[in-house]
Amino acid sequence: MAKPIHIALDVMGGDAGAEMVLPGAELALLRHPDIRFLLYGNERVVLPLLDKYPRLRDASTFFHCDVAVAMDAKPSQALRQGRWRSSMWRAIEAVKTGDADVAVSAGNTGALMAMSKFCLRTMANIERPAIAAIWPTVRGESVVLDVGATIGADAQQLIDFAILGGAMARALFGVQKPTVGLLNIGVEEVKGLEEVRTAGRIMKEVPFRSFSYAGFVEGDDLGKGTVDVVVTEGFAGNIALKTAEGTAKQIGGYLKSAMQRTWMAKLGYLLAKGAFDRLREKMDPRKVNGGVFLGLNGVVIKSHGGTDAEGFASAIALAHGMVRNELIHKIAQDLVHYHRGRYVVPSDNSEGDE
Amino acid sequence: MAKPIHIALDVMGGDAGAEMVLPGAELALLRHPDIRFLLYGNERVVLPLLDKYPRLRDASTFFHCDVAVAMDAKPSQALRQGRWRSSMWRAIEAVKTGDADVAVSAGNTGALMAMSKFCLRTMANIERPAIAAIWPTVRGESVVLDVGATIGADAQQLIDFAILGGAMARALFGVQKPTVGLLNIGVEEVKGLEEVRTAGRIMKEVPFRSFSYAGFVEGDDLGKGTVDVVVTEGFAGNIALKTAEGTAKQIGGYLKSAMQRTWMAKLGYLLAKGAFDRLREKMDPRKVNGGVFLGLNGVVIKSHGGTDAEGFASAIALAHGMVRNELIHKIAQDLVHYHRGRYVVPSDNSEGDE
Repeated sequence: MAKPIHIALDVMGGDAGAEMVLPGAELALLRHPDIRFLLYGNERVVLPLLDKYPRLRDASTFFHCDVAVAMDAKPSQALRQGRWRSSMWRAIEAVKTGDADVAVSAGNTGALMAMSKFCLRTMANIERPAIAAIWPTVRGESVVLDVGATIGADAQQLIDFAILGGAMARALFGVQKPTVGLLNIGVEEVKGLEEVRTAGRIMKEVPFRSFSYAGFVEGDDLGKGTVDVVVTEGFAGNIALKTAEGTAKQIGGYLKSAMQRTWMAKLGYLLAKGAFDRLREKMDPRKVNGGVFLGLNGVVIKSHGGTDAEGFASAIALAHGMVRNELIHKIAQDLVHYHRGRYVVPSDNSEGDE
Repeated sequence: MAKPIHIALDVMGGDAGAEMVLPGAELALLRHPDIRFLLYGNERVVLPLLDKYPRLRDASTFFHCDVAVAMDAKPSQALRQGRWRSSMWRAIEAVKTGDADVAVSAGNTGALMAMSKFCLRTMANIERPAIAAIWPTVRGESVVLDVGATIGADAQQLIDFAILGGAMARALFGVQKPTVGLLNIGVEEVKGLEEVRTAGRIMKEVPFRSFSYAGFVEGDDLGKGTVDVVVTEGFAGNIALKTAEGTAKQIGGYLKSAMQRTWMAKLGYLLAKGAFDRLREKMDPRKVNGGVFLGLNGVVIKSHGGTDAEGFASAIALAHGMVRNELIHKIAQDLVHYHRGRYVVPSDNSEGDE
């Protein structure tokens, strides 16, 4: 068996907390028996529940924490009250100390990002971290970032996102050189933000080893899967993500009510139930649960707060894959290569490659 | 019969040009016999075709134009080559002279906006025009603006968009005081762009007569129809619009292939065909075809370039409704009220209302 992968879990995070996290971890363990868990939470809550999952208990080490970060706590408040002692902090800290390879939490996004930045710090040459989402497309899946870590991004930050997202796509999809597109708007007159244009110009000129730059993409390219990685700043990225989720829900609702309107439709629905089940599975947001915090000295995965055990198991599986495929190592390599390449004297083409 | 409504058509605009515009106009005329058309296009192309639609011919006046703006022309190029003489320019100019009440074109968006701004100019106290889209929601329809006229918007421009969109919602939905939300992102830590926050603060304080401010909304509120009008700057708005269109297409594709996979699914599909047809109709992008240029001294409607006659008829119907319901008059009134209100001495509450 391969070397075990140590995953730190904030057991108190999420709308349902331990009641959702523990069965989720049990499910993930069944699928990936090489996981060892570090569980952080309140002993009064966690230990009685853990007894129900003997397999999980055997694969875990439990650490008691007095504090749980509230789902609606402000990041500054969470940092003040929960640093050093909350289950969220300690799960992240385990990544810093090397006790864990990755941390997963379904807690408050703002607090998780603030603590992750404070504890793990950004990687050398990366100014700001990003949250990357996995986007289901007609061709499979793409990586989209930033979906809301910070608002706005200058050209250099967009290029950093391209490097981070490119490494994640390599770790996730097993492709050698993923394609990267910059999200832009297509109206001729405006041709997009200055920063996006500048980033595009630079990416066209610089030969990146780790991805190939495919130019601008538009909102409708997200679902088409035109590129493996879509890069944007966090405001537009977050709005795109939530708009797509909202549209999928809206159409699901239309479909449901259409199928209940007449007895013919109801009968048709029964006959085609297998097909509808496949469709539902395809549209199931739990399957792509997990925002990956990129650009920090360690990987932290944010699960949806309202997910169930199945969804949380997906977030753990994602964490598992990111470690197995050496995400951080890939990012570090790409950054070294890019930054070394940048300082090479332009006339000397033989340098800067390994 | 009510006073006829005069609609200027750029017959050369759109991927299929006159072949799509003329049958579209014929359809619209059947539904709204009070329309009189002003047709602008090349006589060699338009006149032979027009003979096929005698009813349309009788309700139209034709004007020959030498120049047709290319679908891929740059706005500056279109302005240079097509001013005064292109079918697009002359349709817009007819609104300026008062010969037409509104202009409709399926031509190049950038060129249409550049010419509309140049010819009609922005209304007093409005710095920049916006493009408003009609967004299908689970509750009905909403107005979303700006979906790509310009990138970025300061707080004052966002407030202008709220006034413009509020007036359009009143004209479109017949509500007295539509609700307006500001598109923002919900991650606690960041709480959205400074401009969005400032606009929100001002809209909370100023009592608007023409709409009620409902606070921030997120991407998934678009499909829910949480508010009647969603205000955002053009970059995020365009990306949201195209992302939603792409997602709808993606799910439609999933559904289609799911229903073809097994004979049971195929049979189920046949039985539920009525329901599927309703769903398709509900998701039909042709039904909400038409971006409304707001903030100019006159209304111009942009139809999708790739639409068919049915879609173009929808754009004409939208134009018809905007004139019938006195959109420009409503906007002008609201602007006067808002700007008068702004200069009232705060202690004197009896002034500034009509």
